[in-house]
Amino acid sequence: MSRIAYVNGDYVAHGRAAVHVEDRGYQFADGVYEVIAVRNGALIDGDGHMRRLQYSLDELEIAMPMSPRALAMVIAETIRRNRIQNGIVYLQITRGSSPRNHPFPDFTRPALVITARRAAFPTDAEGVAGGHVITIPDIRWSRCDIKTVSLLPAVLAKQQAVEADAYEAWMIDGDGYITEGSSTNAWIVDKHGRLVTRPKSHAILGGITRETVLRLAAENGIEVIERPFTLEEAVGAREAFLTSTTSFVKPITRIDEHAIANGEPGQITLRLLKLYIDYMKSCAA
Amino acid sequence: MSRIAYVNGDYVAHGRAAVHVEDRGYQFADGVYEVIAVRNGALIDGDGHMRRLQYSLDELEIAMPMSPRALAMVIAETIRRNRIQNGIVYLQITRGSSPRNHPFPDFTRPALVITARRAAFPTDAEGVAGGHVITIPDIRWSRCDIKTVSLLPAVLAKQQAVEADAYEAWMIDGDGYITEGSSTNAWIVDKHGRLVTRPKSHAILGGITRETVLRLAAENGIEVIERPFTLEEAVGAREAFLTSTTSFVKPITRIDEHAIANGEPGQITLRLLKLYIDYMKSCAA
Repeated sequence: MSRIAYVNGDYVAHGRAAVHVEDRGYQFADGVYEVIAVRNGALIDGDGHMRRLQYSLDELEIAMPMSPRALAMVIAETIRRNRIQNGIVYLQITRGSSPRNHPFPDFTRPALVITARRAAFPTDAEGVAGGHVITIPDIRWSRCDIKTVSLLPAVLAKQQAVEADAYEAWMIDGDGYITEGSSTNAWIVDKHGRLVTRPKSHAILGGITRETVLRLAAENGIEVIERPFTLEEAVGAREAFLTSTTSFVKPITRIDEHAIANGEPGQITLRLLKLYIDYMKSCAA
Repeated sequence: MSRIAYVNGDYVAHGRAAVHVEDRGYQFADGVYEVIAVRNGALIDGDGHMRRLQYSLDELEIAMPMSPRALAMVIAETIRRNRIQNGIVYLQITRGSSPRNHPFPDFTRPALVITARRAAFPTDAEGVAGGHVITIPDIRWSRCDIKTVSLLPAVLAKQQAVEADAYEAWMIDGDGYITEGSSTNAWIVDKHGRLVTRPKSHAILGGITRETVLRLAAENGIEVIERPFTLEEAVGAREAFLTSTTSFVKPITRIDEHAIANGEPGQITLRLLKLYIDYMKSCAA
């Protein structure tokens, strides 16, 4: 079956899905995006992703190209045309096409592209397998709270992880605190069994899975402290993990050359993973 | 006459010049660019732009999509097909198209897009007119030496300038020093008549016009000190100006609410502008 993409009003064959070379996404990274998991045909945390999309657009003064209701319909139609049961939807909104010039153009319609693809969800064995992260300096700009396509620093970070045979790169700010991964949020469990994760600010992206895990923790009596933590704290933590739309709750068992605790996925991490998977199943029920 | 763009091997009508939605330039800002002035059909500082292009590609480990000789021929052909006498050439190279995933893909050919357009050069009166700059915090990433299309911070900076009715926004680093403008390099003239401009580092883009002005200054007995300077120094300077491919040497007569000296373009600035224009004429002879 051939894949179909939505591009500015049309459903087109994936291979012909194209944007103009003067789309400001291409020339200026002047746009935002969302990645949403699909499970049994249902969006996971669709409302949360739509709220964050609106936030990113508002921060950049890009208009939403259609009503939220129409957007939801187009997303659903893209999923349907691609016959996605389990997979992900990617949507990107840019400021539109205009003769190249830095300032916002006066009369340009925002551009919308949506793609969807099947993706096998991790098996139980894969899900609970521990991952390795490396740490690198955080060299990104100061507005990481906006989910923009200005992702080159994240690309370079993830490439460093790949070259080190690691799952992810955690970035460290100028004060020695971990901000987040290249496409994931970072968490540890302290010696009292409390979750520790960096609070939302301009320094990190407010992950939707992060929000859901915060809620699941609260609902299940797991204490959470939102505060920055250092590399030293992480290395000495009882457990470590990361969260994202596509990684769910991923145990981290090694940071750089340091095994976390006994080097096995932690019990609280695995409990949160189970809670998250159960939550996803409930969304798709 | 209709405009023609070069896109990955084909010369196509500008309106149909398109790239795939999974071009990594569109989804990740994973690419670089150059803007080159054309005067009387000749490239200004073509060699310098090609050297910087190669530097940017090397830093990101993107392959040059063709030999420098072939690239020069394609640029010349794009200029010819668009019948550009005076204008600019824009060229963008990205890591190519690949299913969306952060790390560098294994087997992807870099993508090359070239456009050209006519642009009237400033009249003598426009060229010598003084401009106003505002100052804003520099919130960009730490590798501004690479000329990437990850330009969203520059877009937001220039938009602030436009909204303040200013020519440009100069950015100030965490230590109070001016780095550069959103698309220009920043200069002042100190009380001894010496040019002061920030040295090349990861904090600024090494402008090609900046290099040419450094050389013209040296050849004409104008002393230059390459060191960072603060906003306070700039406000108290004898003269201020900025340089870029499209702005040449632009006098700056006001920074935020502060007139520079008597508020008129400075004599050394105007001398450098004349030297630069004479140099461009010599390139195109």
